[in-house]
Amino acid sequence: MKLLYPTSIKLDTKSLEGYSVSLHAYDAKKPIPEDLIDAEVLVTWANSPDNLKDAAQRLKKVRWIQSLAAGPNDVLGAGFDPSAITITTGSGLHDNTVAEHTLGLLLTAARRFYEMRDYQTQGKWPGHLGGPQPDRPAGAFTTLQDANVLVWGFGNIAKTLTPWLTALGAKVRGVARHAGVRDGIEVYSEDKLSELLPQTDALVMILPGSDSTRHALNADRLKMLPNHAWVVNVGRGTTVDEEALVSALDQGEIGGAALDVFEKEPLPESSPLYKQKNVVLSPHAAGGRPRGAEALIADNLRRFLAEQTLKNVV
Amino acid sequence: MKLLYPTSIKLDTKSLEGYSVSLHAYDAKKPIPEDLIDAEVLVTWANSPDNLKDAAQRLKKVRWIQSLAAGPNDVLGAGFDPSAITITTGSGLHDNTVAEHTLGLLLTAARRFYEMRDYQTQGKWPGHLGGPQPDRPAGAFTTLQDANVLVWGFGNIAKTLTPWLTALGAKVRGVARHAGVRDGIEVYSEDKLSELLPQTDALVMILPGSDSTRHALNADRLKMLPNHAWVVNVGRGTTVDEEALVSALDQGEIGGAALDVFEKEPLPESSPLYKQKNVVLSPHAAGGRPRGAEALIADNLRRFLAEQTLKNVV
Repeated sequence: MKLLYPTSIKLDTKSLEGYSVSLHAYDAKKPIPEDLIDAEVLVTWANSPDNLKDAAQRLKKVRWIQSLAAGPNDVLGAGFDPSAITITTGSGLHDNTVAEHTLGLLLTAARRFYEMRDYQTQGKWPGHLGGPQPDRPAGAFTTLQDANVLVWGFGNIAKTLTPWLTALGAKVRGVARHAGVRDGIEVYSEDKLSELLPQTDALVMILPGSDSTRHALNADRLKMLPNHAWVVNVGRGTTVDEEALVSALDQGEIGGAALDVFEKEPLPESSPLYKQKNVVLSPHAAGGRPRGAEALIADNLRRFLAEQTLKNVV
Repeated sequence: MKLLYPTSIKLDTKSLEGYSVSLHAYDAKKPIPEDLIDAEVLVTWANSPDNLKDAAQRLKKVRWIQSLAAGPNDVLGAGFDPSAITITTGSGLHDNTVAEHTLGLLLTAARRFYEMRDYQTQGKWPGHLGGPQPDRPAGAFTTLQDANVLVWGFGNIAKTLTPWLTALGAKVRGVARHAGVRDGIEVYSEDKLSELLPQTDALVMILPGSDSTRHALNADRLKMLPNHAWVVNVGRGTTVDEEALVSALDQGEIGGAALDVFEKEPLPESSPLYKQKNVVLSPHAAGGRPRGAEALIADNLRRFLAEQTLKNVV
């Protein structure tokens, strides 16, 4: 049985040895060579659309695809037969990197590093941002200490992020489909948003992309946020109505937005977001560096060979 | 007995009531009114140099000055009689804010938010900073996870900061005058710097300003850092030899610098630091927002009235 792994990521394949499979490297940007098309297991990372489309046609024996991406939309859209193939995601491999990036975006917003940068590039000292300042003034997001942070989408990334936010003094609440207490954080269902949003200093969106999350943050919900509140999106761009967001920023309905994902990526140069005041743009950089891929592949490989249920099945 | 408190900071004076002193507000930017010059206790925050110089001449009965600044250089230089007056600092009131800012600067450096900002202001998508990236490549500071962070100056700010860094996955070591284990962090004496600096991905300077710390980070020590290492200074500008720093940046001897303090503040527009690649400037904004001032004043007031040793004596 052949397992194909991509050369687009440095993997320690030693840790995958000892199973009754042969391991074969492949180039994720080219068609898979003829002698490998009988593979039953395909690991994907940063594959080109052409590679995947071609693989979906030619890999007739593939039974399991392990994507290393948190959301394997590329694999799902390539034309593989879902009735014959199990697709598993790289959920969990990006928790730490995405959470770190999110914390960085929150601090960039609170401590105004983006505004300092604009002064610096003009050779000017942003004196108004330094020296004696009011501490935690009402109606402003200036620190995580005592800030009300609402995390919408409460999976593993949120579980990594929230202890850090709590350590920094933030008061964290969550929103998810199912209410409950998770890792000590009170998580509410979405029907409580109209109560929660008005009490929010920073809204962190970590929703997956799907039909049901499309424009989850829409004009109505943006209006519920206080005028000083920041929106941070590290989930999927489709979950925020960008037109409504720009309008909310124009009207001063929110304090700002730090965005790592967009409805269209790369963000078109025509987008008004580039020049918007109090908008911080990041080029889908929160994740993109899977960590611990070998352990996930090995665990799922063992399960696959033992005909057990795999982890992270789509 | 009169205690004078400045209107330059919002204080909850209710919590100072009940002691055998009368509380009087004063304007820290103007001469102290004639009817208050018999005060024995003076609280200072963001006073003008003229105010302090005048107070040093006219407040003949003052016996204790409580500064709310971490380093009350302004009070020390105003001409008060040190043999008759106890001066106490606001050490501890800035730990959280400075630590938060420091974490933000470290993340700005690691996740390249400053470079993203430069693209954004030009209306461009910084594609090279997003998408699939190598995880923790050798010879680069790209994340706090597994990063070797050396904190030089291991007081209360370091003790607030280091648990956050550890939670984010950094390997933290400290440098201080006295070696030992503090709050679980191994702290080395300065004579170990030649061993520690070459193993450092990010050097965080939190040294106070004094003759003995002047240019503590000099050309020789900068050369000991790896070429990818970042220097973050949130202590005092005098502790870094700026000329040597610019030279180290020019020569590519270090990866970058995120600076909140400078040898001269505001940083003169002629400084080459503004235009230096991989330099992040912040306008002495890490602290400047004393937190919990009332508790410190009340505690020291109680001690003062009981003729006990005060906290934070210079």
